[in-house]
Amino acid sequence: MAEGLQSIKLRDIHITDPLFGSYSKLVSEKIIPYQWEILNDRVENAAPTYCIQNFRIAAGEMQGERKGVVFQDTDLYKWIEAVAYCIENGSGARFEEIADEVIELIARAQQVDGYLNTYFTVTAPQKRWTNLVEGHELYCAGHLIEAAVAYYNATGKTSLLDTAKKYADLICDVFGRGDEQIHGYPGHQEIELALIKLYRITRKRCYLECAKYFIEERGSEPNYFDEEIKKRGGSEFFHEFDNYDLKYSQSHIPPIQQRTAEGHAVRAMYMFSAMADLALELEDDSMMEACQAVWSNITKKRMYITGSIGSSGVLERFTADYDLPNRTNYSETCASIGLMMFGQRMTSITKNAEYYDTVELALYNTVLAGIGMTGDRYFYVNPLEVVPDFCTDHSYMMHVKPERQRWFSVACCPPNLARTLASLGQYIYARDKEGIYINQFISSTAELEVENRKIQINLESGLLQDGKVRLSVYLPEAVPFMVKIRIPKYAGHLKLRRNGLKTECREEKGYALFSEFDSGENLIELDFDIKPRWVGANDWVRDDEGKMALVKGPCVYCLEEVDNGENLGAIYVDPKTLLEEGKPIDELFGNLSTIRYHGTRLANVGIGEDELYGELLLQETNISLMAIPYCHWNNRENGEMLVWQKMYLGR
Amino acid sequence: MAEGLQSIKLRDIHITDPLFGSYSKLVSEKIIPYQWEILNDRVENAAPTYCIQNFRIAAGEMQGERKGVVFQDTDLYKWIEAVAYCIENGSGARFEEIADEVIELIARAQQVDGYLNTYFTVTAPQKRWTNLVEGHELYCAGHLIEAAVAYYNATGKTSLLDTAKKYADLICDVFGRGDEQIHGYPGHQEIELALIKLYRITRKRCYLECAKYFIEERGSEPNYFDEEIKKRGGSEFFHEFDNYDLKYSQSHIPPIQQRTAEGHAVRAMYMFSAMADLALELEDDSMMEACQAVWSNITKKRMYITGSIGSSGVLERFTADYDLPNRTNYSETCASIGLMMFGQRMTSITKNAEYYDTVELALYNTVLAGIGMTGDRYFYVNPLEVVPDFCTDHSYMMHVKPERQRWFSVACCPPNLARTLASLGQYIYARDKEGIYINQFISSTAELEVENRKIQINLESGLLQDGKVRLSVYLPEAVPFMVKIRIPKYAGHLKLRRNGLKTECREEKGYALFSEFDSGENLIELDFDIKPRWVGANDWVRDDEGKMALVKGPCVYCLEEVDNGENLGAIYVDPKTLLEEGKPIDELFGNLSTIRYHGTRLANVGIGEDELYGELLLQETNISLMAIPYCHWNNRENGEMLVWQKMYLGR
Repeated sequence: MAEGLQSIKLRDIHITDPLFGSYSKLVSEKIIPYQWEILNDRVENAAPTYCIQNFRIAAGEMQGERKGVVFQDTDLYKWIEAVAYCIENGSGARFEEIADEVIELIARAQQVDGYLNTYFTVTAPQKRWTNLVEGHELYCAGHLIEAAVAYYNATGKTSLLDTAKKYADLICDVFGRGDEQIHGYPGHQEIELALIKLYRITRKRCYLECAKYFIEERGSEPNYFDEEIKKRGGSEFFHEFDNYDLKYSQSHIPPIQQRTAEGHAVRAMYMFSAMADLALELEDDSMMEACQAVWSNITKKRMYITGSIGSSGVLERFTADYDLPNRTNYSETCASIGLMMFGQRMTSITKNAEYYDTVELALYNTVLAGIGMTGDRYFYVNPLEVVPDFCTDHSYMMHVKPERQRWFSVACCPPNLARTLASLGQYIYARDKEGIYINQFISSTAELEVENRKIQINLESGLLQDGKVRLSVYLPEAVPFMVKIRIPKYAGHLKLRRNGLKTECREEKGYALFSEFDSGENLIELDFDIKPRWVGANDWVRDDEGKMALVKGPCVYCLEEVDNGENLGAIYVDPKTLLEEGKPIDELFGNLSTIRYHGTRLANVGIGEDELYGELLLQETNISLMAIPYCHWNNRENGEMLVWQKMYLGR
Repeated sequence: MAEGLQSIKLRDIHITDPLFGSYSKLVSEKIIPYQWEILNDRVENAAPTYCIQNFRIAAGEMQGERKGVVFQDTDLYKWIEAVAYCIENGSGARFEEIADEVIELIARAQQVDGYLNTYFTVTAPQKRWTNLVEGHELYCAGHLIEAAVAYYNATGKTSLLDTAKKYADLICDVFGRGDEQIHGYPGHQEIELALIKLYRITRKRCYLECAKYFIEERGSEPNYFDEEIKKRGGSEFFHEFDNYDLKYSQSHIPPIQQRTAEGHAVRAMYMFSAMADLALELEDDSMMEACQAVWSNITKKRMYITGSIGSSGVLERFTADYDLPNRTNYSETCASIGLMMFGQRMTSITKNAEYYDTVELALYNTVLAGIGMTGDRYFYVNPLEVVPDFCTDHSYMMHVKPERQRWFSVACCPPNLARTLASLGQYIYARDKEGIYINQFISSTAELEVENRKIQINLESGLLQDGKVRLSVYLPEAVPFMVKIRIPKYAGHLKLRRNGLKTECREEKGYALFSEFDSGENLIELDFDIKPRWVGANDWVRDDEGKMALVKGPCVYCLEEVDNGENLGAIYVDPKTLLEEGKPIDELFGNLSTIRYHGTRLANVGIGEDELYGELLLQETNISLMAIPYCHWNNRENGEMLVWQKMYLGR
């Protein structure tokens, strides 16, 4: 088996970063307690989840109707996963008792044969496995398994793992190519990557084989979903599946033949993440080839500058190359989390840092934007331009909310955010036999063992401030050890110092390589040329034509109405305008500088207030503008927001 | 009773216009025969209608399942209505026999009590009138009545009228405020205006009363639709109605309280057209007040420059003031036809010409664009900007087709176009006791009787060419007679001549008034200052900011890929650029000039072909551009199209 990069255990990582540390703290202090109340339906004015209640009913401990969407169980599983990461990173001890209790409840809701799903247990037992397209049974099972693996890793407790294994064993029995088996696969991918995680801690080959089967069988002829839908005659849970497009679930052709990112963005990301895992475990080049091609298609043609994906508000999906509308897009928070997962795995296999440029974009922009600074308000959809008045219900804009919401009737994003932020360490560091990889510049400390010696890492990152990063590597005694630091694409004229002295270093696959460390403290300093700058889009991106976006390193900036007045679209900026970094806004996390510059506000004074169209008679007014990081928008006041700003040409 | 404007009979109008005459000819030569084949499902590769077949089944003359959408019957009714207008205008004699036959078929499909609807007769007889929200029974009845009135007017034959009256009588019995009556109203308005038409030829008061009842009862508390939906527990025909928004069918508050255009655009237009009729018939100021307010809201805040309405691709509806996206909009052909109907009625009541500016925009741009020059290809949705690659199925763009279609599974637009083009005369002329109104500058002749004397009108319009319009009025002897000619808003420095001599004239409510005619020929010449010019949009229309549209009179121009290359959005035009009228394109109807000018194509050469975002490094290329009338787009090659062009500022 090939060796990929390994994670460093979360318990050995401590995040000290002013920006990410604040979000990280929010997870244990606000998000997890809040979401527990949500799962128990104790939050006023928030959409009910029925989640805990459903498990009680399934366990036979409560009477009543099981409610909520068919995949409601996953909200609890993802919450447990987040709790596990908090326990592991040292911030979640106080949730362990609650988690243990609810884990017992889950076990009691499991059927004798291992089956575990509140909807199909309570509401439609006779329909088990009959609606793979819509039923989400395997999707739910996947999140159960991920939670179980995480909880076992964090606590060493096997209760949830036993429950998950029992269910996984059933699934391995039920699905496959055998005559007695169901030849289907999940309508929403997720279990594949979960089974691989389970395999990695149990080393039980059948889990890996089952994951492989799900990927390989998908999209083969005759198409299982086509047949299933024909048999059913229409949709059962989701009307939008009536006129089902196989591309929606990436089941139009076998995954290894896929070269473009199609369909539902989260489904795609979970599937390609699993395929990357399989490519590593099985040394399967065809899997890898598909992953590379799709990754390239996404990052070169189908991704927003904020690292978000899914251009279509209808069906939350990919559309066509360069089709990247800024106001009607979906750009689901979960899809960017999925993109982070996919990118992390691609680097793990290839040991090439380039994928982390995208992981970083997704994390610093869309994922952080997905949660408000109070920890109890969320964005599911992440537009790059918002005019609140245009976000009308029951219309083409019904998916776009101009302010963060308390919860959602389909609430995949909030707990997905929680588990991602609680396990952020995995995106900062990785290791292999040779040494440590620094993939993200998020201030933190880490500890790892090399030849039974504890090496201590202290990363102090001013990436978003002055661009200076200081890495201290402490070795109790000199051992062969290598430090590989990712050089992001936006790094300008990178200056390096080692133990205070200017140095050069070898670069390999996007990493700066450092070795030959002395015992004691070794200091590596990086000075990124990190200034605010304007970025343009490829000419084929029609929605960004004549526009530019303001970025600083991985951080995309935006204009908000609270700082710049109404009608942000009437503002034009000369690309050569002076950009000045200004005082951070106190109430926003991380002490990130604002960016100030001048622009022109254009008004058509030839058209009366009460006219819609008329003579062109333009009036220009010079104005002062202030941009803030996109991830922080809608944390002060509701109002308009704009990423892509119009260029003032011709000067 | 107040006197409104009357139509001049279609048999007394003959259209000679090179543009509209071509479309008019198309109706009888291509559209009606083609649509007859369609109704009989004899066109290959076109969506089946099952229309004639359904009537056969309902009449008990054929076995099998009734198929197609629940309101499929209307396709045939609208076809008959179009045939009637052709018979009346002298181009449709050859269809009369077919029409008579199918009218007999319709009569045989009618139930004994007068009920007539193939779906509820064949498929769900027990569900009659139980689903007013979705069932479209009253909508279908409305189109039957409209067809019957038109056919009676054209032929004097009463067979279809008898069928319609019998059904209308049943409806007047079934619906109303009585204890035994259903207190509901149509989910899709249409019958209201049909009943008024029926009242106007039968003078049977109950039809007018029933129309009035439907408008007055709508949106009253307790809300009938709310109750009906509650009772049913969800949708029956249309999943999109599951989470029903009362605004969708303008039933959220009583129509006379409505002041903004809400919900489904066609429903709204049909309703307000009926309300305008009622305002006239009943001298009801509250109806009129609502009509005025909504008209004003539409034309000042919710209408495209092409006279189209319905900004949302989801649910074909109005959204919010100034929300006018150009690429994802609906702008249904039928909605613009509805807007024409509404405007025509508003002028009829007020004798104010202003409404015709909008009628003209809708007609010259969206309605003509709805049909291709071969007569067998149609647009349902009329975007102002098209990038064919982005019109992906199963996505937020699924409603937008980048090329005209042979037919649609919901095919309201093609037959609606046919009946509108076949009765175009009603939009050109109107009359009252005093004389004739010239509302549109479409070359044609007309004849009308005043004091038993035949007055002949000959309108020769060069509106779209040199802006010169010549009107000859022939009176066999001098009688008191007035000619009122609409002065459109775009008319610049209008010059008038009477019998060859310069003259001035009185203006009243947007009409230039001429009287005191001599016997024999009287000549009125108008010279509109009609040059191509750039028009801007109100600053609050975010989607048009920094853009301008090219118009000539009522005609909106656009750029097409076939003339200007790919990526039209990368083109910038200096508003001061010289606009030159060029040779018309031979294959396009009406001899309309092209418009030629220079522009700048902007390329960002800082970004590699294989990059999505990167450094700004702009390169400008001067290019020659050619615009054609919007109504003619997609008649030569498929490709991009663009109405709103980017301004090159700063020069």
